[in-house]
Amino acid sequence: MKIVFIGSGNLATHLATALVMAGENVVQVYSKTYEHAQILADKVRGVAVSSIDEICNDADAYIISIKDDALPSVVEQLRKGRADRLFVHTAGSVPMSVLGSHAAVLYPMQTFSKSREVNFREIPCFIEATDDEAYKLVAHLAHTVSDKVVDLDSDKRRKLHLSAVFACNFVNHCYHLAERIMADAGLDFDLLLPLIDETARKVHRLSPHDAQTGPMVRNDRKVMDKQMELISDERTQEIYKLLAESIYKMR
Amino acid sequence: MKIVFIGSGNLATHLATALVMAGENVVQVYSKTYEHAQILADKVRGVAVSSIDEICNDADAYIISIKDDALPSVVEQLRKGRADRLFVHTAGSVPMSVLGSHAAVLYPMQTFSKSREVNFREIPCFIEATDDEAYKLVAHLAHTVSDKVVDLDSDKRRKLHLSAVFACNFVNHCYHLAERIMADAGLDFDLLLPLIDETARKVHRLSPHDAQTGPMVRNDRKVMDKQMELISDERTQEIYKLLAESIYKMR
Repeated sequence: MKIVFIGSGNLATHLATALVMAGENVVQVYSKTYEHAQILADKVRGVAVSSIDEICNDADAYIISIKDDALPSVVEQLRKGRADRLFVHTAGSVPMSVLGSHAAVLYPMQTFSKSREVNFREIPCFIEATDDEAYKLVAHLAHTVSDKVVDLDSDKRRKLHLSAVFACNFVNHCYHLAERIMADAGLDFDLLLPLIDETARKVHRLSPHDAQTGPMVRNDRKVMDKQMELISDERTQEIYKLLAESIYKMR
Repeated sequence: MKIVFIGSGNLATHLATALVMAGENVVQVYSKTYEHAQILADKVRGVAVSSIDEICNDADAYIISIKDDALPSVVEQLRKGRADRLFVHTAGSVPMSVLGSHAAVLYPMQTFSKSREVNFREIPCFIEATDDEAYKLVAHLAHTVSDKVVDLDSDKRRKLHLSAVFACNFVNHCYHLAERIMADAGLDFDLLLPLIDETARKVHRLSPHDAQTGPMVRNDRKVMDKQMELISDERTQEIYKLLAESIYKMR
């Protein structure tokens, strides 16, 4: 398939690279910033463009992977002269309807950073489409890069994305807050890695409810009060209080 | 060494088992509830007791692994006739001073559930002692079970324990909240596992700050507002708001 990528961020970079490695043809990469387009275009042996006018009209799929807010206006511009082309977006929280007719969604649920390699085959990809032909094309793309392809409509995908924010962004932020407290005590963050790894491994076998340990499930009020006193930052204290309460209530 | 365990909870179970596997001798296991003492005693081929009067006076070490609140009164009772014996506790947030003289702390930082095997050798163990002889004994015990033994005083251990609450208990609770949202959409929690694993793996190489992704670091307000609306539970909504703000401020 002849593919154009609109956007060259973390997700676009990983998805475009995975598609090309699997034999697909990324002919153009668009970004407002030419240098950004060029970095990804070089990787996938495509052509970098930074003006929407330069984007070709005859691609089999336009994969749009940009900030959610920017999607509607970019789609509006792109659709001119490409009404019959397949448009695909990759966003968790944006409904497919934003793309118009003959459209699809391919949402790979993972945390992508440019400096990290990921094994795309292990990443669950959630797809939906407006029509059978669009479905066939997006399913082909998804199966080309992933072993775990799941049909999911826009409403459920929003909930999935919200879950991902809890399971990834909020989790990572808890690591960040832990790192700050460690640094404050002159301790190396790496000392926490065996604990972090086991916490993640545990939920492969136990439900998060059954995996929980620590002062909140034991209702060890003395420890909790002393820990609250140790926190100097007000917002972090508030986070501690709320999460402690929530664990206790959901015991 | 001849060891008595006071307490038979998750931590006691894993530590006692690791010590016995490495050739140490756990002669008695005490718990208020005889059945609990018996389960661990059977595992380590020791004797279960449920009355403090039955605890022998001549052990080389008394390892006390009970709820923090209960420590002072149990120590007071136990010290009678055992003033010269080594007392060790395993708690993150309790100062060593609670044990009196000739005492030590051995804090293995891990999340222990009885139903899960752990490789104790990978668990960082934090130790301190009141005197050289106590230090020698506790260091011997720690090195017997772990490859990562670190000296740490009571003040810093409290901060370490607080970090562990963020990196483990709060992280696991975020998994729990994610699971609820998934269930609400009829989705299987296991779909989140590749994301959970990669989030944990990432911080082996990147700092949590550099590893962060998602709508908060992109400052994608539209997504955040829509996600807030999706959350039905008020406390979870509050958690979302606070953590989102905190990520944004620490970008």
